[in-house]
Amino acid sequence: MIPAPLLRLLIPALVQLAALFSPALRAAERPRDTRPNIVMIVADDHGLDALGCYGNPVISTPHLDALAADGTRFTHAFCTTASCSPSRSVILSGQQNHRNGMYGLQHDAHHFQSFDRVQSLPVLLGAAGYRTARIGKFHVAPESVYAFQTVLSGGAANDPATIGRSPVEMAERTREVIAAPDPRPFFLYFASDDPHRANAVLPDGKPTFDTYPQPNSFGNRPAGYPGIDPVRYRPADVRVPAFLPDTPASRAELAEYYQAVSRLDQGVGHLIALLKAAGHYDNTLILYLSDNGAAFPGAKTTLYDPGMRQPLIVRSPGRRNPGAVQSAMVSWADLTPTLLDVAGVATHRTPFDGRSFRAALDGAPVSGWDTVFASHTFHEVTLYYPMRVVRTRRHKLIVNLASELPYPFALDLIKSPTWISATLPGATHYGRRTIEKFLHRPRLELYDLARDPDEITNLADSPAHAALQADLLAKLKAFQTASHDPWFHLWTYR
Amino acid sequence: MIPAPLLRLLIPALVQLAALFSPALRAAERPRDTRPNIVMIVADDHGLDALGCYGNPVISTPHLDALAADGTRFTHAFCTTASCSPSRSVILSGQQNHRNGMYGLQHDAHHFQSFDRVQSLPVLLGAAGYRTARIGKFHVAPESVYAFQTVLSGGAANDPATIGRSPVEMAERTREVIAAPDPRPFFLYFASDDPHRANAVLPDGKPTFDTYPQPNSFGNRPAGYPGIDPVRYRPADVRVPAFLPDTPASRAELAEYYQAVSRLDQGVGHLIALLKAAGHYDNTLILYLSDNGAAFPGAKTTLYDPGMRQPLIVRSPGRRNPGAVQSAMVSWADLTPTLLDVAGVATHRTPFDGRSFRAALDGAPVSGWDTVFASHTFHEVTLYYPMRVVRTRRHKLIVNLASELPYPFALDLIKSPTWISATLPGATHYGRRTIEKFLHRPRLELYDLARDPDEITNLADSPAHAALQADLLAKLKAFQTASHDPWFHLWTYR
Repeated sequence: MIPAPLLRLLIPALVQLAALFSPALRAAERPRDTRPNIVMIVADDHGLDALGCYGNPVISTPHLDALAADGTRFTHAFCTTASCSPSRSVILSGQQNHRNGMYGLQHDAHHFQSFDRVQSLPVLLGAAGYRTARIGKFHVAPESVYAFQTVLSGGAANDPATIGRSPVEMAERTREVIAAPDPRPFFLYFASDDPHRANAVLPDGKPTFDTYPQPNSFGNRPAGYPGIDPVRYRPADVRVPAFLPDTPASRAELAEYYQAVSRLDQGVGHLIALLKAAGHYDNTLILYLSDNGAAFPGAKTTLYDPGMRQPLIVRSPGRRNPGAVQSAMVSWADLTPTLLDVAGVATHRTPFDGRSFRAALDGAPVSGWDTVFASHTFHEVTLYYPMRVVRTRRHKLIVNLASELPYPFALDLIKSPTWISATLPGATHYGRRTIEKFLHRPRLELYDLARDPDEITNLADSPAHAALQADLLAKLKAFQTASHDPWFHLWTYR
Repeated sequence: MIPAPLLRLLIPALVQLAALFSPALRAAERPRDTRPNIVMIVADDHGLDALGCYGNPVISTPHLDALAADGTRFTHAFCTTASCSPSRSVILSGQQNHRNGMYGLQHDAHHFQSFDRVQSLPVLLGAAGYRTARIGKFHVAPESVYAFQTVLSGGAANDPATIGRSPVEMAERTREVIAAPDPRPFFLYFASDDPHRANAVLPDGKPTFDTYPQPNSFGNRPAGYPGIDPVRYRPADVRVPAFLPDTPASRAELAEYYQAVSRLDQGVGHLIALLKAAGHYDNTLILYLSDNGAAFPGAKTTLYDPGMRQPLIVRSPGRRNPGAVQSAMVSWADLTPTLLDVAGVATHRTPFDGRSFRAALDGAPVSGWDTVFASHTFHEVTLYYPMRVVRTRRHKLIVNLASELPYPFALDLIKSPTWISATLPGATHYGRRTIEKFLHRPRLELYDLARDPDEITNLADSPAHAALQADLLAKLKAFQTASHDPWFHLWTYR
């Protein structure tokens, strides 16, 4: 007879022991699993501006271009917040960050994390019998909420030595998942640190973003990375997007950024080669996307289009329409519902802020996909700047809930030579915006994206657009209510 | 032979099993422990304005007055932040909330919590052989950081049915700790919900702070509470402090608040009676304090003195000077170092922002206790309003780091009939301040507390006080640096 107190202590151990064997048992009992594998590649700060298949004639991204040519390229895909941790929390939960609790960055003093009640994509897929594995940048918390069965390699945020900078090595390490003799389908979350800005390392070992007037390296280093054939760019050749100033500093930084993108592209190429070699290319749903726009002031941390409009390339098993271009407006809140739908996981009891766009994966025209919402509150915990956004095909309304404050800057962006050199005394403009308007924003911003794609002319409170503004505001408030936005009460209390 | 995987799983269970017995074994091996017990009573929103021993001639607090008469009453004790969760995190960690990560409220969507690395008072006392137990309001997180061995009863924030409203019942439940036949000393953390404002419960079961024009009940209820002899007050009799408007609404609310204080006083009386009955009164260090000032606009959530200057009554074992009045300036960051010092726990490896005032516990004059610091960033997560404060005996400097924003209101305060009725259209003042100045604050506030104890006349940026201001600002920045304040960088980036 085992005494009751001892039994109570033994039960968790026995449950864990049983769990060690049960997946294999379950797999052996049932017919071969025909559900597709899922590989989600999440880049770090890769904007729509720096991809061949999205129209950049200079940058070399042959593997991503090939993926698009064999799959579907989304032209209207959006993150819901242009900050790393919150965006990844949305990608992995299907909930807006203001609902899942990840209001800002996860690391160091910022310390944001999701609620324990959140049911994440890896946990739901794991519960449905998928093998789940992640490699590279994680940057969400708590680990228990975003639990993967296998952590191939993690890494701290902004760690210069992270494997997330070495995408061919990353891909190589996924071999054990891709080539495993396990009949269960797998979900692989492949998250690079490229092409994020990189901390330089000072002689005393301390990391720093202070490189001015030298450009940030974007992780490029003289020693290179295993398996990477570096693609270098001349500053004179890069294409300067409209949101950036065209200066020697911005061109030098764009050249570094491009090189980091090309490095990542080679990692994607190696990953796809491994999938093909293992015979999994045709039964794997492959997605390529980025958490938010490029790490330049005017993109990342803003909800202007360079911050929130993102690459999304999807290659579906049995795709019927290679090279399709999909114009449905989808957001990162839709990813988890979509992937669970693809995996056949019932989700009627899981509260999502997005919905499945499975029907759109092969590029088929779909209706009812013409509005997305976005929500930013923090990046670093010291940078409070809540914004709520509704974007339709033609218009965007931004509500700046703390517009009295100057627009705050992420540490890596305020120290960027692009910003510093463009805002020296006497400067008036940053890209097409005035510096003054970039730093001091009105409570409402309304843009006609058809006439004004760079979001320069604010139509808010103009009589000609009163009805439009009221309609968008009503949509935005309904979104806030439906997504349990804690900041909704500021409409009443301010 | 037990297989290695099974053994790995069994070990944690065996360790726990061993731990069940080891304290008793350890206790039996060594001589009787002569370290004092510690009972820390933490009230919720009990200001200095509502205690007999602090000069209020109307309110009935005989047990607290008796404790002060038998111990030491501190006249210059300060919380370091006037918001429940952050203040409690400071009380229990000895670190400023901006250092321990508890930047705002813990519950619901606010979701702030301390870093896993924080070493808290109960954990350190437990490791030193103390029995540790808590009852009532907790409101800090994670549980693992602020772990007590015994949780007599917890309760959710603002729960109308919490035992924290029934202080005699609370005291009664501590009997098992106080009277336990265990030779180890105990640390009892006794945290009431009184005299916090109370949620009313609507007929549909939903909680609400909307009671206007009726006063908030402050937990008072017609059915009363077990063991409590309700003390009711006439609105005409209460003393309206200078920070409040003298209106029928404020008087009605103060009367309710007083009643809640008198209820708590009876709970303290019962707790002390239990200590005496168990023979522990003379070997127990007893502290009475509050997390922050009264739950009225102008006190709680502000760092004006009604928000941060607090009751602190201490009764030491073998006290040499009953009825002493101690004027040393101490803050809640000093509590954990002090109690660990009293318990003889070595703390040289624990980073504290406070220091031990053990030498001051019996009322002996001490030198070098003339400055305190305070730090507020959030209350609710939607209420961003970072303030940093240095207060000397005569002066206070407040830096409002987001002074562009209107001053934000806690939900219970903005709905208070005291505020609503005093700020109806046409009103100009709230207490002695203008409503305009209460809502819109300058970046710097500098007060001469000797001439202006109500902090009305802002001396900041006046030429006559330039040297004083520079000196206080230097002290404040040094404090921010020493306490690892993440918001320090706003001095550079704004």
